[in-house]
Amino acid sequence: MRSTTRHFQRYYNPDVGNAIRMDTNTNVLGSNPAAVEFMKAQRTDLNDYPNTYSDGLRDTLAELYGLERENFVVGSGSDETLDIAFKTFTEWGDNAAVPVPSYSLYDYFVSMNGGKAYPVYLTDDFQLDVDAMLKPDAKVLIMPSPNNPTGNSFKKKDIEEILERSKGIVIVDEAYGEYAGTSMIPMVNEFENLIVMRTFSKAYAMAALRVGYAVSNLNISDMMNCVKIPYSLNSISEGAAIAAVKDQEFIKKSVKLVNDNRKPLTDGLKKLGFEPFPSDANFILARSPIDHKVLTDGLKKKGVLIRDFGSKRRTENCVRTTIGSKELNDILLKKTEEVISGR
Amino acid sequence: MRSTTRHFQRYYNPDVGNAIRMDTNTNVLGSNPAAVEFMKAQRTDLNDYPNTYSDGLRDTLAELYGLERENFVVGSGSDETLDIAFKTFTEWGDNAAVPVPSYSLYDYFVSMNGGKAYPVYLTDDFQLDVDAMLKPDAKVLIMPSPNNPTGNSFKKKDIEEILERSKGIVIVDEAYGEYAGTSMIPMVNEFENLIVMRTFSKAYAMAALRVGYAVSNLNISDMMNCVKIPYSLNSISEGAAIAAVKDQEFIKKSVKLVNDNRKPLTDGLKKLGFEPFPSDANFILARSPIDHKVLTDGLKKKGVLIRDFGSKRRTENCVRTTIGSKELNDILLKKTEEVISGR
Repeated sequence: MRSTTRHFQRYYNPDVGNAIRMDTNTNVLGSNPAAVEFMKAQRTDLNDYPNTYSDGLRDTLAELYGLERENFVVGSGSDETLDIAFKTFTEWGDNAAVPVPSYSLYDYFVSMNGGKAYPVYLTDDFQLDVDAMLKPDAKVLIMPSPNNPTGNSFKKKDIEEILERSKGIVIVDEAYGEYAGTSMIPMVNEFENLIVMRTFSKAYAMAALRVGYAVSNLNISDMMNCVKIPYSLNSISEGAAIAAVKDQEFIKKSVKLVNDNRKPLTDGLKKLGFEPFPSDANFILARSPIDHKVLTDGLKKKGVLIRDFGSKRRTENCVRTTIGSKELNDILLKKTEEVISGR
Repeated sequence: MRSTTRHFQRYYNPDVGNAIRMDTNTNVLGSNPAAVEFMKAQRTDLNDYPNTYSDGLRDTLAELYGLERENFVVGSGSDETLDIAFKTFTEWGDNAAVPVPSYSLYDYFVSMNGGKAYPVYLTDDFQLDVDAMLKPDAKVLIMPSPNNPTGNSFKKKDIEEILERSKGIVIVDEAYGEYAGTSMIPMVNEFENLIVMRTFSKAYAMAALRVGYAVSNLNISDMMNCVKIPYSLNSISEGAAIAAVKDQEFIKKSVKLVNDNRKPLTDGLKKLGFEPFPSDANFILARSPIDHKVLTDGLKKKGVLIRDFGSKRRTENCVRTTIGSKELNDILLKKTEEVISGR
């Protein structure tokens, strides 16, 4: 087995039954309606290979952002575009700078591709420590904004300083970018070393279909498309994604639902003794007033799943919950209150 | 850009229009009917992540072959399972032994993952040169059987000798295995180092959906599943593949169509002056009586695409065509006769 992968274990694969899932940060409105319509109406010849580089979806994204088709690399989930980026821009043993805490799979993509993940702790208010990020002189620097699991966006001026001072490729993973309302995508042609990643698994409510994309200048995109596995995105997911991009009303509605329910859920958690952190995404990280494992196990028994980050450094005794609709949030708060009071 | 990938170029992405495609070796019966039925009836929640390791499809395959779920690794196309194998079993700079001529993308998967493809020429009758395959002491030895583009199966005793004498991982890519009627899959638990790969893009007529799988002993499969990107196969493709595996009648019918039409097409090509090579797959490689480029360009102008291998070593002046139905083959032969006679 590749030496850099020998510590790998199987990934989170919970037996969920009928539980209410506040652990995956998908869209609480349910399946993307335009994608569902496409699935019902579609007449794709299943026997034909997909377009090699998903030109149809890339054209649709180019129109959405006012960029060119060749600014985009499309993958089977943004996970594939992450894999492509490390394959394209790292040699064996190269450092990658990864903030802590951030998305747990970054380490895995770095190691899988023969590199070394160099952990860089965030500041006390979960912002980027610019000097510390630059210190390992990394070939790739990766950061989610809004950050997962902390929920906050990083300061644009910090990201720009990193882009200017680093010789490495800087990946800004905007998996929750639709909720934040700000994006680095309009800047991709201004930086030599910027890649922005987006997914259809969160606000777009299409996690089942595995679609993601990377946006960067024409030079970076061309290198990544050359390394990408040809026609890796299946035709059905591509067609559904095209339909979904054209229905921006659903995205607006989804973002509004989160914005409307963020403060009530935050207040409810505070009332129960939690210390919630500021969020620009569709989830909230909060320090629990009781033991994190007692809380998450107790909620699981009552049919509600949230994610436990309580035994990790910097998120000691913290849990993460998706921001639901009013109804879902009320259930979460009620069940949490029951667990806390030992009922 | 990663040093081993700097020579990469974009992959075959032809503008096909309404041409008859005898160049991709998909199933001439068209879309898999069980998969089409699944697509029409399906009620998948598009907002839910797929099962992490595609357990549903792995269980269905285990039943088909009388093996266990954990003998299988499922990917978004067998291309993904190839990528996983090289990621799991090669270090930077490791050799991989690749027969020549064989599938053009093997080199690319090796280089993409930091390795070196070591070309090993086949014997004059396109069989494996066992000693030559073992010579580079490769970490991974990969061979398609039936071989693409030559069409013949390799001798089972040669593959077994390689498995016994090599310390490396031996991948037998059975992309066209359904047509050959023989398989190494029943032997996976008998060898420490055997991986068999299969695809849903050929006999299963589901190229659009990108589904493939690797079969190996429990130890190898577990390592590969640990390295594989979680839930890389989308839920719709997984569901369609499960339906397709359960409809073995379609596969039998598809194989029979190829078996019935192989000899008439071979004879027709011989009559036109071609030298066709023996085939166990759904395509035929044949040496052209006229210049390969004149032939393929001429056919393209007449709306028929076949694949040109004429400028590669060992397949000098050769072309490859899918074995079609009687109707398709008659069109191909008629148009070929026109091109040869300059009409």
